[in-house]
Amino acid sequence: MKATVFFGARSFEHEVSIVSAIVLRDVLALDFVFIDKMGEMYAIDSANMQAKTFASGAYKNAPKLTFTHGGLLQKGLLKSHFVPVSLALNLVHGAEGEDGKLTALFEFFHIPYIGPRLEASILSYNKELTKLYAASKDVPTLPYSIIRRGDSIAEPPPFILKPLHLGSSIGISVVKDSKELDYALDVAFEFDDTILLEPFKQGIKEYNLAGCHAGGEWHLSIIEEPQKGEILDFEKKYLDFSRRDSVQKAQISPELESTIIKYFQKIYANCFEGALIRCDFFVQDDCVYLNEINPVPGSLAHYLFTDFRAVFAALGSSLPKVRNVPIQYLFINQIRNAKGK
Amino acid sequence: MKATVFFGARSFEHEVSIVSAIVLRDVLALDFVFIDKMGEMYAIDSANMQAKTFASGAYKNAPKLTFTHGGLLQKGLLKSHFVPVSLALNLVHGAEGEDGKLTALFEFFHIPYIGPRLEASILSYNKELTKLYAASKDVPTLPYSIIRRGDSIAEPPPFILKPLHLGSSIGISVVKDSKELDYALDVAFEFDDTILLEPFKQGIKEYNLAGCHAGGEWHLSIIEEPQKGEILDFEKKYLDFSRRDSVQKAQISPELESTIIKYFQKIYANCFEGALIRCDFFVQDDCVYLNEINPVPGSLAHYLFTDFRAVFAALGSSLPKVRNVPIQYLFINQIRNAKGK
Repeated sequence: MKATVFFGARSFEHEVSIVSAIVLRDVLALDFVFIDKMGEMYAIDSANMQAKTFASGAYKNAPKLTFTHGGLLQKGLLKSHFVPVSLALNLVHGAEGEDGKLTALFEFFHIPYIGPRLEASILSYNKELTKLYAASKDVPTLPYSIIRRGDSIAEPPPFILKPLHLGSSIGISVVKDSKELDYALDVAFEFDDTILLEPFKQGIKEYNLAGCHAGGEWHLSIIEEPQKGEILDFEKKYLDFSRRDSVQKAQISPELESTIIKYFQKIYANCFEGALIRCDFFVQDDCVYLNEINPVPGSLAHYLFTDFRAVFAALGSSLPKVRNVPIQYLFINQIRNAKGK
Repeated sequence: MKATVFFGARSFEHEVSIVSAIVLRDVLALDFVFIDKMGEMYAIDSANMQAKTFASGAYKNAPKLTFTHGGLLQKGLLKSHFVPVSLALNLVHGAEGEDGKLTALFEFFHIPYIGPRLEASILSYNKELTKLYAASKDVPTLPYSIIRRGDSIAEPPPFILKPLHLGSSIGISVVKDSKELDYALDVAFEFDDTILLEPFKQGIKEYNLAGCHAGGEWHLSIIEEPQKGEILDFEKKYLDFSRRDSVQKAQISPELESTIIKYFQKIYANCFEGALIRCDFFVQDDCVYLNEINPVPGSLAHYLFTDFRAVFAALGSSLPKVRNVPIQYLFINQIRNAKGK
């Protein structure tokens, strides 16, 4: 089944989403719907899936789309025509994609989709809720405190400041000395009104695992130890999302591997069905902590799977069922009948 | 400012939402948008705001609407015309209204609205998340366990079973004897895949407080001790939502009143701004527990306020600001410039 990928949108990760979609074009058969910063949607031809289409504004020459029941309406010269969407793929990173907005649109317009459901979105988008949710599943996370404007900070450095929301490393600073605090706060508050403070642990290891539960079984990627270092430009991001042969399985003990897998499955179960997610873990002194849940990983972390197409197909064909809500006006008719109306 | 009320939708409380909107017609100046069970929207004339309009299907003669940037498109014979919405009011109870879907639509289409934001929706719609959130704010709730199909239940009766989601008393049973268990589980599982179990406490008292924070100050209702007993039909629900003179302030100590108000404010702050909510509390042995957060109370609990119109106006004119997301293609242009393209 050919999926329709939605990307872009009013997010700090708008451009990363464009990279993500361009890379996926070479991995899956897809139709492309670009959401621009105003929320307008355009049907982008596969051949035009290049950075310059978006940066130059040339995408505005593509046919405009709006949501309708079960799909999209494509505007034509004289009239609109209906484009059914049998499977949507949410590839909007950060706000609008991961905060639940696009999800809600798919739900409201009855469009089947791969991506986090509403609760899953909110729980992974807010870093404090992620911790509360993990605690309810007995998955450890680092201790934290919440900072709002004007709060004084009791903890001594070193610590990390993170905007409470946003899905990526945007706005995050390591504060090693109290002289760095004011600037780090300014940076974080530029992106959010609430900041999460976590202890900074020297030498902590990071491991990523992606996967989903579909068709009654787990589809898990290799566990990767991501390479640190900032990704500064479009081309590097593109190369990062495109890598295939360079991905190495992390050298970890079988015990550590099994703990990471167990925590992944606890986090996923009964909440993230319908999505392919990546969980990022910290490990220090043999203790494993959930760092964050990425419910829309870059290019869906295809490079971590041996047969990504099979995983994608399994997921697309076992999406969570929508519960039927009978509306029969029994309540209203009951009184109308009693009155003989 | 005249608000546009959205009501109905694909929810078990579809009909309660209709009652809610009919009652509010006599309280506020409103325009009416009915969302039917298929998700189609109709502009309902104030004079047609009667139960029979909806039960008979007569609403389908009203002009059809669709969402667009900043408002609605109303379909006409030859062409659609734009109906701006300067202030929307979310009056959909239960699913689609309280689970975040309608909220996400308002956000996506940049329509200012009174109602819970996305996180606030998810945290109040899922009863376990409500408890986790309350714990993070040091507000007590009753202990609980989570039941899924096939789980064995260790707790002895009496206890209460509640569908994990849904905003009202639908699907809730008190199990006093283990003989009643199977039936109670069947009822609850009809509405949800996950059930919350709480101890049943004989003689526990219930108190409700509604309010909002707007224009820099708190607007709180009286504290009411709700009258128990099932509301069985449309007319009784209508009378319940319409009551004005019959509402009595609960006879409670000043200490209890101040604890209830303190807990309300803790729950509301930094999450429910933009909404008028009602919190329902339990009290036993001088301990106060949050029972549930109702982020879209029936007829917005207008009957609990001495000057509801003033509260509504204050709320409508101090909605949370949407953070601007600059999208300037710096990332893409950086590499394009470097390449001399």
